[in-house]
Amino acid sequence: MRIGIDAMGSDFSPRNEIGGTVLAYDYFSKDSQSNIELSLYGDETEIKNIAKKYNYNIAQFQCVHSSQQVEMTDDPLEILKTKPDSSLYRGLEDLKNGKIDAFLSAGNTGAMLAISTVLLGRINGVSRPTIATLMPTASQKPTILLDVGATIDHRTRFLYEFAIMGSIYAQFALNIPEPRIGLLNIGEESSKGTDEVREAYKMLENSNLNFIGNIEGNDILMGKADVIVCDGFVGNVILKFTEGFVSFLKAKLKSYGSSNLMNKFKLAMSAPTIKNIFKELDYEEYGGVPILGVNGISIVGHGKSSPLAIKNMIARAKELVDNNLTKKIEDSIILNTINP
Amino acid sequence: MRIGIDAMGSDFSPRNEIGGTVLAYDYFSKDSQSNIELSLYGDETEIKNIAKKYNYNIAQFQCVHSSQQVEMTDDPLEILKTKPDSSLYRGLEDLKNGKIDAFLSAGNTGAMLAISTVLLGRINGVSRPTIATLMPTASQKPTILLDVGATIDHRTRFLYEFAIMGSIYAQFALNIPEPRIGLLNIGEESSKGTDEVREAYKMLENSNLNFIGNIEGNDILMGKADVIVCDGFVGNVILKFTEGFVSFLKAKLKSYGSSNLMNKFKLAMSAPTIKNIFKELDYEEYGGVPILGVNGISIVGHGKSSPLAIKNMIARAKELVDNNLTKKIEDSIILNTINP
Repeated sequence: MRIGIDAMGSDFSPRNEIGGTVLAYDYFSKDSQSNIELSLYGDETEIKNIAKKYNYNIAQFQCVHSSQQVEMTDDPLEILKTKPDSSLYRGLEDLKNGKIDAFLSAGNTGAMLAISTVLLGRINGVSRPTIATLMPTASQKPTILLDVGATIDHRTRFLYEFAIMGSIYAQFALNIPEPRIGLLNIGEESSKGTDEVREAYKMLENSNLNFIGNIEGNDILMGKADVIVCDGFVGNVILKFTEGFVSFLKAKLKSYGSSNLMNKFKLAMSAPTIKNIFKELDYEEYGGVPILGVNGISIVGHGKSSPLAIKNMIARAKELVDNNLTKKIEDSIILNTINP
Repeated sequence: MRIGIDAMGSDFSPRNEIGGTVLAYDYFSKDSQSNIELSLYGDETEIKNIAKKYNYNIAQFQCVHSSQQVEMTDDPLEILKTKPDSSLYRGLEDLKNGKIDAFLSAGNTGAMLAISTVLLGRINGVSRPTIATLMPTASQKPTILLDVGATIDHRTRFLYEFAIMGSIYAQFALNIPEPRIGLLNIGEESSKGTDEVREAYKMLENSNLNFIGNIEGNDILMGKADVIVCDGFVGNVILKFTEGFVSFLKAKLKSYGSSNLMNKFKLAMSAPTIKNIFKELDYEEYGGVPILGVNGISIVGHGKSSPLAIKNMIARAKELVDNNLTKKIEDSIILNTINP
């Protein structure tokens, strides 16, 4: 198995990407059964200089040179025309041509989605590839929320496909045999919500999925469903609101802590707990999410990905290749479309 | 000025309503200028019994008897037919007929919205009456978020009207001279979002409102805007998600606290801070929100309203009558429709 890593993606590239690749290599080396080759995509000179500077041994990795770099602010569709020699583009091209089995980047999410869709193509029966996110819950396992911004069009068919793809992803990334699928809505009853959402309710009810009904906003973090389906507008707002909520709590705690010394002391006592909870709310820990619905394993991570997050992304890529995610989604789409 | 209070609305009715009315009376009595009559709507016998039991002096209030009671689970439109002698219905009828100047209830929100709309009618130019909510922020003042569930239809015109009504409400309830209006979206650029949202951006840009552009999910609690406009589906999910977030944090803190004695002690130290922050996130503290866009001051509060929250609702009602909210909304709708 060969996995490609975009070395130029994250906010701390290529350092964190190199560090994460080294961590993954060490991790896989412990298992004599695994036979994985790791390739770094990016500016060869820069990669070598940074590796040298931080004492990373990269002799065991292939380095695939590219002269361009995708920025976080680049318009995804422009990149197709203007940056064909970027690490992100080259990696997805190699994935398309079968030179690698999976590609991952902590760079521009929109670019990963758009270029994966254009180069790899959509899986048969999939209207819109999507990106899921993992939300922490009050129970043990996280919940998969999708879509979170790829598709703001709220057509029923899209919601239905998100449910199918989310279910497969939950099975093979979270190891849940029959994932509970919830539909995000503004009430429990099937009569609630927009026309599109009510139609989606009916389709899901008649599908082969383990549909458990509507999920309201207050249940998202309660672990009531393994997969929660919504349109990308709502999903994106929730995803970002979660980030903003943590900033809000930090600001409030800070202003409390600065009010007097005793309060400062009290807060310092509980700081580790609070930090741990905030950490759970941090996307990065989960090590990236696959672009669901494209013909290939293409994984995108947070721009702030640490070396550990990059390592987790590589491990996730291996897992999804092992489980043949692409084929499983294709089969489930066919099954649930022919015989819903 | 006469203010009517639904004594049968809250989860702890009529006790909390009576308690809140007594608090409001004491509060207004301090000001010799204020000349306010308070009327309790509900089952007269029950109100008198509860007042006696808890030693509330209600001799100074008028009691308007009604034989029926609206339940939280009642279908709003059914109530029109089946519960014309409920306290909620009677109160709104008296408001319509000018017997009182404002009416408030901590009962069924959907019923308050529907029956206020049917009995009082919409203000000229308003398509959909709406209910706003107040969100706490990292800065001093809360942000007004609307709509939060009344109108899930995301038509551009509706979003535009929400902005106009929210702006007036911010001026006269939060005392902000030129409220900053933000449009909830999935990116900063005007090109982002659904067709409806992009159209709303253009209309707001050309309006007389102090429109500051798009607001993303992570900015909602940051106090960047005084009023944030969205459709009722998204707003409802956010409102409930905020509630769920607090439950999530409580569950996490509890599981941490129970892991060992030292952790329990550490948490106990910071418990008051954390409780204060959670309290800020609690809707109840703000004392109810008006139904915007109907011909009359009709205010709805949380089912769990404490006597203090009821008192705050009464004070809010007085403020909005004093400021002639209804007329101000009508004028602003006309101004921004004729000359946007």
